[in-house]
Amino acid sequence: MTELKTIDSQVRDLIWAVREKTAGEVHQTFEVDEKTSYKDLVTTVDKRNERWINRRLKEIDPGCRIVSEEGFGDQVNDMSGHVWVVDPLDGTMNFVMQRSRYAIMIGLFVDGQPSQGYIMDVTAKKLYHGGPNTGVFVQTSEGERPLHAPADKDLHDSLVSVNSMMILHGDHNLRQVALQARGLRMYGSAGLEITDVLAGRLGAYISWLKPWDAAAGRIMAAALNLTFVKIDGTPADVLSSNSVLIATNNAAKDILRLVK
Amino acid sequence: MTELKTIDSQVRDLIWAVREKTAGEVHQTFEVDEKTSYKDLVTTVDKRNERWINRRLKEIDPGCRIVSEEGFGDQVNDMSGHVWVVDPLDGTMNFVMQRSRYAIMIGLFVDGQPSQGYIMDVTAKKLYHGGPNTGVFVQTSEGERPLHAPADKDLHDSLVSVNSMMILHGDHNLRQVALQARGLRMYGSAGLEITDVLAGRLGAYISWLKPWDAAAGRIMAAALNLTFVKIDGTPADVLSSNSVLIATNNAAKDILRLVK
Repeated sequence: MTELKTIDSQVRDLIWAVREKTAGEVHQTFEVDEKTSYKDLVTTVDKRNERWINRRLKEIDPGCRIVSEEGFGDQVNDMSGHVWVVDPLDGTMNFVMQRSRYAIMIGLFVDGQPSQGYIMDVTAKKLYHGGPNTGVFVQTSEGERPLHAPADKDLHDSLVSVNSMMILHGDHNLRQVALQARGLRMYGSAGLEITDVLAGRLGAYISWLKPWDAAAGRIMAAALNLTFVKIDGTPADVLSSNSVLIATNNAAKDILRLVK
Repeated sequence: MTELKTIDSQVRDLIWAVREKTAGEVHQTFEVDEKTSYKDLVTTVDKRNERWINRRLKEIDPGCRIVSEEGFGDQVNDMSGHVWVVDPLDGTMNFVMQRSRYAIMIGLFVDGQPSQGYIMDVTAKKLYHGGPNTGVFVQTSEGERPLHAPADKDLHDSLVSVNSMMILHGDHNLRQVALQARGLRMYGSAGLEITDVLAGRLGAYISWLKPWDAAAGRIMAAALNLTFVKIDGTPADVLSSNSVLIATNNAAKDILRLVK
């Protein structure tokens, strides 16, 4: 079996290569389809990225299984062995409408344990990567620096991001959470919102996340002593879609007290 | 009287100089004070920038009057002659909490008419500038390109940004506006939200804006055939604080039909 260190290095090369291709295509023409509604899009770039990433992961890590967004992965019902979770283009609406503010995310679990997460901020050319065994790093064209655990701020001293539908529908008393925070932000990309929490720019992010929206972030959150739980405070299953909270421990405590 | 072209060139030099200084200071220590609450901050950088900009504007454009956020401007009650409107640091909360996503804004009105607007996205190193007589341009370290009027999308085909307090308090039926849009975004800097509308990344931005939050944006909006009105559809006075809408004409029509 290939060593994790070798796998990690090859996956980083892969995600940078996919970044270059994707960033080059964002200003070109691509096909856009609606999935469940006009608010839920998929492009030819999402699909091509997923096929490319999945094919290469099978070469890099033979015998692995892959959970991915657009249907080119495996049917995975348990977490034994190496399970990769892939979001080939996170923030597709931003990609289409803004040509900026989108991400590519990959996460590896080994026998159910968080191993390595990768979130590429395509526009900023920044790769957040790492996990509990290695620590977390931010890699740019200028080099790499370790990301330390952010200050454990409480809700009152934090900016927070909450899923817009949850706010608009008044779910879970989250409007009250936002009112108690220093401010509310919404970027339209789970990947960018999660890297903001990892880096301390947001104290909390609350959203309904599918496995590929959450995987890379929860792996790096585990390495940075951040809280990652379902909105009722219980652990979130990797293979399920959940309303989740990723936050500093103090902000998480404040939020879980307010959530209904 | 100095020619507008000369003034424009010197103001661009000024805002780039202030940008360099501000960007260099964002990772250092600065003093933060609360103004009206823990959600409304001011730093020594806001104040220093305002003194610097105002002093230099008086040299560049002798006899002008200045309206500015932190109290170092003039008492201006009418719009005759050259009136500059200055926001020395827009998105101060982001500056303090995120060390990114903030702007510097300057606008010039000549006898009440929009002349030249300047919005500097400090983190992205991008200056949006221009007005009805010159057109609008985006200047970066790599050069300058004209900004053309964005596609006149309707609300259903637009991302929108709405002030978080208006959404959280349920003001003006704006939750319904957000629900009909393709998605809701909140960046925490009027300057960045306005440049997103100018560049077509957002179809609309709705917020309660003070004169310095709105001036530069309304000048460039006038040059790009965008709607800039109070939320009741009537013209917004330059010297007043208003709930305003800056949007494509089609999105504005849709929004004004929904607003209560």
